[in-house]
Amino acid sequence: MIDLRSDTVTKPDEEMREAARDADVGDDVYGEDPTVNRLEAEAADLVGMEDALYVPTGTMGNQVAVRTHTERGQEVLTERESHVVKWELGGMAQLSTLQVRTLDGGERGVPTPEQVREEYVEEDLHRPGTGLLTLENTHNSKGGVAIAPEKIDAAAEAAHDRGVPVHLDGARVMNAAVAHDVPPERMTESVDSVMFCLSKGLGAPVGSILAGSEEFVARARRNRKLFGGGMRQAGVIAGPGRLALENVERLAEDHENARTLAEQLASVEGLTVQDPETNIVLVDTEGTGHEADAFLDSCEEMDVLGTQFDTHVARFCTHWDADRDDVETAAERVGQAVENLD
Amino acid sequence: MIDLRSDTVTKPDEEMREAARDADVGDDVYGEDPTVNRLEAEAADLVGMEDALYVPTGTMGNQVAVRTHTERGQEVLTERESHVVKWELGGMAQLSTLQVRTLDGGERGVPTPEQVREEYVEEDLHRPGTGLLTLENTHNSKGGVAIAPEKIDAAAEAAHDRGVPVHLDGARVMNAAVAHDVPPERMTESVDSVMFCLSKGLGAPVGSILAGSEEFVARARRNRKLFGGGMRQAGVIAGPGRLALENVERLAEDHENARTLAEQLASVEGLTVQDPETNIVLVDTEGTGHEADAFLDSCEEMDVLGTQFDTHVARFCTHWDADRDDVETAAERVGQAVENLD
Amino acid sequence: MIDLRSDTVTKPDEEMREAARDADVGDDVYGEDPTVNRLEAEAADLVGMEDALYVPTGTMGNQVAVRTHTERGQEVLTERESHVVKWELGGMAQLSTLQVRTLDGGERGVPTPEQVREEYVEEDLHRPGTGLLTLENTHNSKGGVAIAPEKIDAAAEAAHDRGVPVHLDGARVMNAAVAHDVPPERMTESVDSVMFCLSKGLGAPVGSILAGSEEFVARARRNRKLFGGGMRQAGVIAGPGRLALENVERLAEDHENARTLAEQLASVEGLTVQDPETNIVLVDTEGTGHEADAFLDSCEEMDVLGTQFDTHVARFCTHWDADRDDVETAAERVGQAVENLD
Amino acid sequence: MIDLRSDTVTKPDEEMREAARDADVGDDVYGEDPTVNRLEAEAADLVGMEDALYVPTGTMGNQVAVRTHTERGQEVLTERESHVVKWELGGMAQLSTLQVRTLDGGERGVPTPEQVREEYVEEDLHRPGTGLLTLENTHNSKGGVAIAPEKIDAAAEAAHDRGVPVHLDGARVMNAAVAHDVPPERMTESVDSVMFCLSKGLGAPVGSILAGSEEFVARARRNRKLFGGGMRQAGVIAGPGRLALENVERLAEDHENARTLAEQLASVEGLTVQDPETNIVLVDTEGTGHEADAFLDSCEEMDVLGTQFDTHVARFCTHWDADRDDVETAAERVGQAVENLD
Repeated sequence: MIDLRSDTVTKPDEEMREAARDADVGDDVYGEDPTVNRLEAEAADLVGMEDALYVPTGTMGNQVAVRTHTERGQEVLTERESHVVKWELGGMAQLSTLQVRTLDGGERGVPTPEQVREEYVEEDLHRPGTGLLTLENTHNSKGGVAIAPEKIDAAAEAAHDRGVPVHLDGARVMNAAVAHDVPPERMTESVDSVMFCLSKGLGAPVGSILAGSEEFVARARRNRKLFGGGMRQAGVIAGPGRLALENVERLAEDHENARTLAEQLASVEGLTVQDPETNIVLVDTEGTGHEADAFLDSCEEMDVLGTQFDTHVARFCTHWDADRDDVETAAERVGQAVENLD
Repeated sequence: MIDLRSDTVTKPDEEMREAARDADVGDDVYGEDPTVNRLEAEAADLVGMEDALYVPTGTMGNQVAVRTHTERGQEVLTERESHVVKWELGGMAQLSTLQVRTLDGGERGVPTPEQVREEYVEEDLHRPGTGLLTLENTHNSKGGVAIAPEKIDAAAEAAHDRGVPVHLDGARVMNAAVAHDVPPERMTESVDSVMFCLSKGLGAPVGSILAGSEEFVARARRNRKLFGGGMRQAGVIAGPGRLALENVERLAEDHENARTLAEQLASVEGLTVQDPETNIVLVDTEGTGHEADAFLDSCEEMDVLGTQFDTHVARFCTHWDADRDDVETAAERVGQAVENLD
Repeated sequence: MIDLRSDTVTKPDEEMREAARDADVGDDVYGEDPTVNRLEAEAADLVGMEDALYVPTGTMGNQVAVRTHTERGQEVLTERESHVVKWELGGMAQLSTLQVRTLDGGERGVPTPEQVREEYVEEDLHRPGTGLLTLENTHNSKGGVAIAPEKIDAAAEAAHDRGVPVHLDGARVMNAAVAHDVPPERMTESVDSVMFCLSKGLGAPVGSILAGSEEFVARARRNRKLFGGGMRQAGVIAGPGRLALENVERLAEDHENARTLAEQLASVEGLTVQDPETNIVLVDTEGTGHEADAFLDSCEEMDVLGTQFDTHVARFCTHWDADRDDVETAAERVGQAVENLD
Repeated sequence: MIDLRSDTVTKPDEEMREAARDADVGDDVYGEDPTVNRLEAEAADLVGMEDALYVPTGTMGNQVAVRTHTERGQEVLTERESHVVKWELGGMAQLSTLQVRTLDGGERGVPTPEQVREEYVEEDLHRPGTGLLTLENTHNSKGGVAIAPEKIDAAAEAAHDRGVPVHLDGARVMNAAVAHDVPPERMTESVDSVMFCLSKGLGAPVGSILAGSEEFVARARRNRKLFGGGMRQAGVIAGPGRLALENVERLAEDHENARTLAEQLASVEGLTVQDPETNIVLVDTEGTGHEADAFLDSCEEMDVLGTQFDTHVARFCTHWDADRDDVETAAERVGQAVENLD
């Protein structure tokens, strides 16, 4: 079985497992887990922020950030298809009673400065004021699109001009940095906080990072406790997390594998393939006369797994547990799966 | 001064004032105010619903409806520019922790059945399920557009097909009924609840109605109490409210006055005027080289009041305190106001 | 029928009805209703505050106050049996996501300074900080107990020492002032905001007042809009409300009537009567061998109405629609009702 | 340094570390982590429930339980000093908009059936209905009191009689089981859900269990995702968690050590020591003429750590990283620390 459903399925390698076993640990709620402390310092450094917080999941990192940046009664500007509004169970309203105002970020999922300016609302007697802008890079729902740092800068600047802070959902921001061949800190230069996952392409078993100013992280620590994210001897998972930080450059392989996969799938009759910028390959099945779920069932019978994205769109995701050979084999099998559809 | 800012500025007439004085009253929290009870029965009848609830404002009517229809953790589908999401301080998230998913209803502010179907979300592990669709008629932000009952039916049917109830923000639904020359109950035939205002074009000093099934209204009554809307001897205002119910047909005058106003303003150099369907006239000032606020300041100096809607858009609203003569005078003065701009 | 269920059942007199008819009105959402403006100024004056806000109900006044004083994530200290926590549908949690920490105010429902100091919590990593103390005077659930201003001062001072603001639920604070024979402003001297009802013993058909500093009221105005309390030509009810402000001294009659009622009921075999301090008379029915609901049913058959307060406790409330004769008649009938029980 | 601040400071032993390294893992959001699945099955078994959910912290377990059992608008009955209301940042109101109604559980922190019956509220027009009763065993704030299963049964039965479900915060329920010498499932027999910690006395580095019916756990899984607790290859921490399940009987040593410590401290002039029932020793410092913080500072200088519980109360907690010798040494040092105070 070649599992291309998500880069979340990756399993830790031997070195990470050793790091789990050997981690120097303590009670992180008291701030005494040395491995977590080291991870937080290194992760902050990587994205050019003052401080960082280790959280069990990316969803928690995003929701903690949203709550920490805002006050009761405000509104959050976010891209229409972004993870934070689409896949997190309505957490902004559920956990922080915030209304969302969505911007249509177009094909690449990034709002323009004009959009930010236009949708910004100044608090008055009838309207909640805009309290936060969130951006996402790479943009998952748009197919792993790697947004250029200048686009992020422009949107962020428009928000900052009105006193609105900016949070970046950078679950896969390292993929974006690699795609643009810039250091990670360039991708986060103009935002006030960033969340990135250690457990996707970087390969750690568990955990994400929320980074920002010292003052922001201090307050975020309290909100992490509220959401139930204050773990004890978390060094056991922070140890592998530290190794994950060294895997940034390795993501280039996933991107190359995605391009290979896309090229081969593009030659399959009936499939339309979006040019991958990072490790996500979106495949439109409309030309086969079948919907994505039938297509994926047929793939599964050929021992290849992907996920459904829309009625006619399937997603394949490359990652470190699938090497070049796996990807080429997968492409062949998908070709066969399409034939089997009829 | 001719005040065309809103139909909310209308003052009760002599008959309404007498009704306030003479109202038979009781404690409505105990359900013992006979005037309120009569008003609720008559209002339910007017819109073809089983029961109705008297609320102090339209905002409360909408927010009570939203809360009554939904469960914690759900999502509400609503038109992008609708009052409930734009002008009610984010109440759906603030008061009921609901996430909003907005639909772009285009020029007329009404989503198509396709849009409803596409944006509907079935509850799963990552997504809040769609718990409600709200519609607005007439659509305020679109310029008092009177949406045809068939369009409402179509959107509502798409929601009902998926088990999603529909609330109509009908603050000015009586204007829509008059514009389409159908009885009010035709406008609400396919929705599960409707809120309409007694205090706008219908002329009552205070109050709105929330109507629906008996079971819905019973639960709404409790949410009205939660929001602080359980009044005591409310007959004093429900009395004038009962008279307001008789003013539906009179709205035709407001519409005619709006058309007259629009025609005259259209001949003013520099103004572009949207064809009014009801009692709202939107005027684009871009051709004058001035923004709406400067335009309105100039109008105010000529003793005419309107409100700003967008950078270059001003709104004038006709109502029963402005007769044909007032409207014609207002148009002349606005013409002068534009000349004075330069 | 002599209705002693509550002072909320009072009906406006002729003068108030004329005031409703003749009120000078405008759109209060624009701040243009002259009658509302006058009422707010006079009411602020009466309780010695800078400014005031007219709200449709006491519940809304309390909930707006709570929200305006606090930030997301805080905790509210309140007396265990107070109206705001017991009878307002959990509004503090529902509408403002605030946790309540209750103090047992003993027989008179007023926490001591020691209790306030002890239950005060400083915000830390595990605990929500105390954001507000609410007090209630007269205390409804304790039987209309009129708390002395010095007790209020003492509790308030303990809160202020820790930077915690104090809101007074003074639905019947005018009764407390009359009972203590001090001007109303003495009762509110040490609190930051007060809500009092125009529609109970003061006799107005609808409406309450929330008073505080100018800055507080400005923010409260926005929360009133959020809860759906921003009414339009509210002068129609504010007019009678202004007259209600003149009825403070008249409450002495209600108190005298309550004493008369209590004395006569005390002589009824089987009833134990709490000494009334204001207009509320609590009657324990345990000695009759019957629970309060059976007792009240029997009273109703004799054309006297009261309400159940606890398994064996019934409440009678005096008010301006029940004069001395009514009260004496009521007492006789209750005596008969007890006899009829067996 | 002998660290007796909490049993949360325990570090995983060699066997647990190996289990972390060797864990069979998968993506738990897809339900595919075999180690997590095994842990959940074994943990459910241990407490006699149908199913269980692995959560990163006890706080998340409690808050997920509270949300899963209730509907928007309800009220939760809980013991006044319980962890869920005192130390979880007001999560019930913050995350689930629930009002809390507290019961005073007296010295042992367990409400009587009478209290439950008395404080139960049936939903009506003015009151939120009781939606849940939470209990805590052992009761942390009362000094690790091990409540007898019959007391839990009695309170739970009173709730069930009114249709109210019961959640047990059993962070240290295994200590209670050991203290009462019954199998863990006896402690949870009458409750609908239980949370217990793998990371306290049981020694796992991270993680807690929430157990209940299959249907309950299915819905809890979704709320875990909402709060950001849906981890990926969590087998790395679930592996040590499985071993923790085998450590239940070992807790008897902690209890014996606590008794030893208590006896020795009781002989220190000025200290009053509460008889420990499990692994928590509360020490009153009033007799020394010093407050608990000064006392603890002095202990720290002697290389013994405890935590402050109240102005004059300090807590020492025994656990598997402190053996009999450590505890005896600690007691001697504390004696010296008291002498050093003057």
